[in-house]
This record gives sequence, structure tokens and C-alpha cells, in this order.
Amino acid sequence: MHYPKAFSSLLPLFIPSAVACFYSHKTYSVYSLSTTMASTVTPTPILKDELDIVIPTIRNLDFLEMWRPFFQPYHLIIVQDGDPSKVIKVPEGFDYELYNRNDINRILGPKASCISFKDSACRCFGYMVSKKKYVFTIDDDCFVAKDPSGNDINALEQHIKNLLSPSTPFFFNTLYDPYREGTDFVRGYPFSLREGVPTAVSHGLWLNIPDYDAPTQLVKPRERNTRFVDAVLTIPKGTLFPMCGMNLAFDRELIGPAMYFGLMGDGQPIGRYDDMWAGWCMKVICDHMGWGVKTGLPYIWHSKASNPFVNLKKEYKGIYWQEELIPFFQAATLPKECTTVQSCYKELAKQVKAKLGKVDDYFNKLADAMLTWIEAWDELNPSGKIANGK
Amino acid sequence: MHYPKAFSSLLPLFIPSAVACFYSHKTYSVYSLSTTMASTVTPTPILKDELDIVIPTIRNLDFLEMWRPFFQPYHLIIVQDGDPSKVIKVPEGFDYELYNRNDINRILGPKASCISFKDSACRCFGYMVSKKKYVFTIDDDCFVAKDPSGNDINALEQHIKNLLSPSTPFFFNTLYDPYREGTDFVRGYPFSLREGVPTAVSHGLWLNIPDYDAPTQLVKPRERNTRFVDAVLTIPKGTLFPMCGMNLAFDRELIGPAMYFGLMGDGQPIGRYDDMWAGWCMKVICDHMGWGVKTGLPYIWHSKASNPFVNLKKEYKGIYWQEELIPFFQAATLPKECTTVQSCYKELAKQVKAKLGKVDDYFNKLADAMLTWIEAWDELNPSGKIANGK
Repeated sequence: MHYPKAFSSLLPLFIPSAVACFYSHKTYSVYSLSTTMASTVTPTPILKDELDIVIPTIRNLDFLEMWRPFFQPYHLIIVQDGDPSKVIKVPEGFDYELYNRNDINRILGPKASCISFKDSACRCFGYMVSKKKYVFTIDDDCFVAKDPSGNDINALEQHIKNLLSPSTPFFFNTLYDPYREGTDFVRGYPFSLREGVPTAVSHGLWLNIPDYDAPTQLVKPRERNTRFVDAVLTIPKGTLFPMCGMNLAFDRELIGPAMYFGLMGDGQPIGRYDDMWAGWCMKVICDHMGWGVKTGLPYIWHSKASNPFVNLKKEYKGIYWQEELIPFFQAATLPKECTTVQSCYKELAKQVKAKLGKVDDYFNKLADAMLTWIEAWDELNPSGKIANGK
Repeated sequence: MHYPKAFSSLLPLFIPSAVACFYSHKTYSVYSLSTTMASTVTPTPILKDELDIVIPTIRNLDFLEMWRPFFQPYHLIIVQDGDPSKVIKVPEGFDYELYNRNDINRILGPKASCISFKDSACRCFGYMVSKKKYVFTIDDDCFVAKDPSGNDINALEQHIKNLLSPSTPFFFNTLYDPYREGTDFVRGYPFSLREGVPTAVSHGLWLNIPDYDAPTQLVKPRERNTRFVDAVLTIPKGTLFPMCGMNLAFDRELIGPAMYFGLMGDGQPIGRYDDMWAGWCMKVICDHMGWGVKTGLPYIWHSKASNPFVNLKKEYKGIYWQEELIPFFQAATLPKECTTVQSCYKELAKQVKAKLGKVDDYFNKLADAMLTWIEAWDELNPSGKIANGK
């Protein structure tokens, strides 16, 4: 009934390469060799062939040096924002593909209009071209954080743990994620809900610079997040949250088509709402599909606050539009005929146009872009299935 | 707009007695003397005259020795369960009133039937006879826990912090309680929701022996909770949780009449669902009234696991009835005419009878007891107002 606790004994993250790592959202089983055997074979990082790391950037990726022990075994998808003629340097030894604006235009043709420019929202192009089951996305000003014992936190490992263990959106467990080692469901938790549901999204947090909006940045320029909260929890069904794209992983096979980061930046009236938009759309769809969204661990070290004056300019329309967006998403329901993420997303686009179009014409454009996104997604992922090495 | 962060600088819990501690659910302001003045006057614990500590017990209260530095300034209400002829010893120096079964029968007359016997559910009698605005209730096998730095945790102080700062049930804040020192609302949190709502309940957790049901106790007899999660969070609106009565505080003036712990123990078909029942009823009513429920800090040290075989006998009917109770409470809605907790609770009793009576005749009895409880509450609290020293 429970996700086998033995799983965590496989961590930190390396299992023998000779061992197939089988898992599914039905059985949650992971097979391992005995310890004796394990020492004789080369270790392979879990999900090495089934996860892409997506990084949007405008600069050389020196930050990868610090992540080398954790990221080097994985494939990177780098989405270069801004001037495509600029050459982005990637440290030696990383396996990557890089797309600049010319590549995006070439690959998507007229549908490239749905991909934002001069905004980290462009990262979602990387989700679309990935061929893997899982995606982890991280900003290039995010470094390896330390846990309270002073050890480096392997953020990717924790995201994988979060994604491979079920979620519990229908009832709150007061000891947080019941599938973690050393904990369980507490007295009074209905037994019928203890199997949980598949986890679609793992939302990680930030030490040092917290993810504040411009007004809060302006009011509290010196506030730093120093509190390490040792918890992962499922955001309950029916509850919205502010999803930050800085340190985020998801099951692309489950929820990928809903992870569209909208129209932001160059030529658009707002910025810094890309991940929020994706989070609200995604949460409504996960609630409809019966999938879970987790937040909490892992932490990354967010090194640098962005300029609050620039941010205020990007955000200010979002700040008041949001007061209409939240009631819209809180009330949004999807008909039961919507049984795929694509159909859910198209239905949501329709509702955006019908109900938010009157807030500002921007939402009519956004609704159209949502449909374009789905068309482009389906074009690049024609079978509806993902080549994930299985 | 925010709860003033200066509040936390008043803690640990002692402010000069010469200083009035003003607060209300509207303004959340706490006034303090300057540090210089503070050193010249005798400190008084916050809410000393506005909070009762309710303890159900069948034995001498030696456990209070460990709590003396924190509890001695407060008034205790001890509800003696079991044989009323037994004398319960209370350590010297505590200010208390004690009620045994004879007292309960004398005070409530025939309405005493709603108060459970031979079950810690009897504690709710203490809520009813309290004349204070706040109640903290704790079990007599709960001791002072230590934080990760090795300092004693003043559980009562943390509960008071939780109750005096607002809750955020309508949208999840990923950095947890935004009113804590060093944190705030994150980017994307709607500004219109940042004032929060009054907090009705503060649910604390347990280190050492976790609050597991009998089956989990049997399967994992050696599991101990050693994870200190440094967080307080609001349980979102519409989400149910398993409320444990071991370490619990609430605003009696707001939610007291909903904190009925049901019919358990002697003569009843179940036990160990008293706090769960109260939690589900209370949460439905808080959601309706627009009040918040927090969980997380503070931890207490839970010293002793109860006997899993005895527990299984008490719980087994609850374990399968619960599968019908949870959908019932998840679907329960209260008409907008219900504007007081009493009217909400009576409406809920009606729904219990109508919808759960067919599950077992026990729920017809329980629904009647819910109405008796409200009658008794109103009899002992006639004005509808509470003498809380204001």
C-alpha cells in the first residue's frame, strides 16, 4: 500500500548501471542489486536517460561548474534568450543542445510567436523539444545550497524523489509527505487515500534571496531566507499557489503540455508572471486529472536579487490583473470530457478568452497563444507518446 | 497591511506587566515599552489572564513539573476522567480548578450525557467551563521538546503566536506562514489576500512518538519522529486534516462551541476519534465562517505510545466508518443563514443525522449529543460573550 521505504536507501541517487530502474505510477517499485554487487559496477544516476535539465539564459553558463557533480551525467537543453548572435559558453564536459531565437523560429515557423522573447518564459520551448519523461528547470543565478549540517544539497535528487513518490492532494497529512523515510500517515488519515496519486510537479524553494515581488523587494531589500524547512508537502486539491520557475521539476509525460509559460517580455505588457500563469493553469488541470503537486524541498541558493525597479515595471499590470485572475482560476472547472492534458488546456484557453478577454485584450492574445502552443507541442510530439528509453 | 513583525521581538513571551497587550482580530497590534523601561518592571506572560490550560487525566500530574517555567503563570482546568473518588495530585504552586465525573454530572445535570467517560474526549468539558478567550489543551504524557539547537521549546508561546497572527486559507504561500519573522508573501501572492483572516485553531505536532493509528503502530512499533520541521502553515480552505488533541490551542471565543469531542469511550462503540471528529466539524465551520486553522510548530515531546492492541479495539469501527465520514465532511456545506458557530454546529448535527444515521445508529446518538452540547454550552456561557478580562 505504501511507497516502499526501501527506495530511499538507494540514495544518494546512484544505483548500479547494470540495474534497470523500473517504476511506474502504478507500482512505485525500484529494484536494486545487493550492496556487494553494487560495489563492482559503475554507478549510474537515477533517471539519467529519462530527464532533461532545461536552462534559459543570456550569459555564459559558469554556474554549471558548481553543479557539475550533480548535473554532468544528465543532458541539458539550453534556451538562449536575447541576441542570437551572442555565443554562450558552456563549461567543458556537459552534454547539451542549445537553441537560440533563430533556432526557435526555424523549428516552429509561424508558431514561434507563442514563445516569449527577452523573458525567461522562453524556457518552455525546452520542455517542448525535450524527448524525455521528466524535466528539471533551473535559473542560471541559482547555486548549490547547503543543508543545516553543512552538506551540499543535491536538488535534482530530491526533485526525483518527489516525482517518484505519490502525492496526497485529497487530505492533509500533518507530518507532511507520508512517503518520506521516518514518517507515515497519522491517525485519522483515511486508509482508502493512502496509496496517493501520481506526482506531476515538484516545486523547490530558495535560500538566501527569496522570490519576492517588486513591492516587497522595495520594502524589504535586505531580507534573506535563512530558514531551512525540512518538509515536502502536497498542495491540496482546489488550492492555488505561486509556482516559481527557478527550481522546478515535472513529469513531462503527464503534465508537459500544460507547462506553457505564456507571453511575457518583449512586446508584451507584463513580465514575471510566466511561471505563475503556468502554475495556475497546471494546478487546475492536475486537480481535474487527479494528479499531485508537491512543494518544499529541495532548496537551491538564489544568489542575486533582480532589480526591483525593473521588476516593478514588468509586474505592475500583473499585480492588478491578478486580482481577477485568481478568482477566475479558483472557479475554473473542466468538463469530464476533457481526459487529456491537451484537451484540458484548450478548454482553459477558451475560458480565458471568454472570461478574461474583457479584463484586457492581452488575454485574448494569450488565449490564442495557448492554442498555438498546444499545436506546436503536438507537432513536435506527434505520437502523443514520449521516447523515454522505456 | 502586514502583521507587524516587531511582535516577535517581544518574545520569549514576557512583556512588562505595566504594558497593556492590546490585540484584536482586526488590527493585530501589540504595544511594548522600550527595552530600557522593560528591565525595570516585572514581566507578565502574554495572555496570562486570557488563556486556560485544559488537561484531561486519570493520574497525578507530575508531568507539570517539567512545564512549570511555562505553565505556572496560567490557570489550569483539570478534567479528571475515570473513578471520581481517586485523588489526583497536582504539584504545588499551580493555580487550578479540577472537575471529576461527579462535578460534571452536578453541573450539567441530564446534559452530562454529552460528555464522554473513560476517554480523553472528556476534556471538552473544560472548554465549556472556561471563562477565557483562549484555550490550550495538552495530554499528560507530553513533555517539553527541544529545538535543533537544544533549547527547550515553549509550546504555549508558539501557540499564542500562531493564534495572534492571521491565517491565509485562500491561497498557499510557499514560504509557509508569511507573518513569521524573516519571511513574507512570495511573488504571485494576491495583494488583496495579504491581510489574512483570524486564526481560530493552532495545531501543534509531536516529536518522539508520532500520532499513529493502531495498524500503523503495529506495523512500525519502533518508528519515532525525529524530524523538526521549522514551519507553521495554514490548512487551505476546503481541505480536511486529522486534528490531534494532544497539543492544541484555539480561540474559544471564535470557535469554542465547535470543539466538541463527541461520544467516545465508556458505553460507546468507538474511541480515539474524538479529536478527529472535532477537527472535521471545526474545519467545515471555519471554512464557512472565513477563519483559519494553522498546523506545524510547536512540537511537544510525546513520551509514550499507547497500547496498539487496545487502540485497535477502540478504533476499528472508526477506521471503516471514516471512509463514509470524510466524503460527508468534504461535501458538507452550511447555508449562509448560519452566522454563528452555534447555528453552524446545529445545522451540521442535522446533516449528521440525515446522512450518517444510516451508516450506524451511533451517529443518530452522536447528532443528538451535538445538540445537547450546544445547549449546555449556551447554558454555561449565557451571554454569548466571554469574560476575558477585556
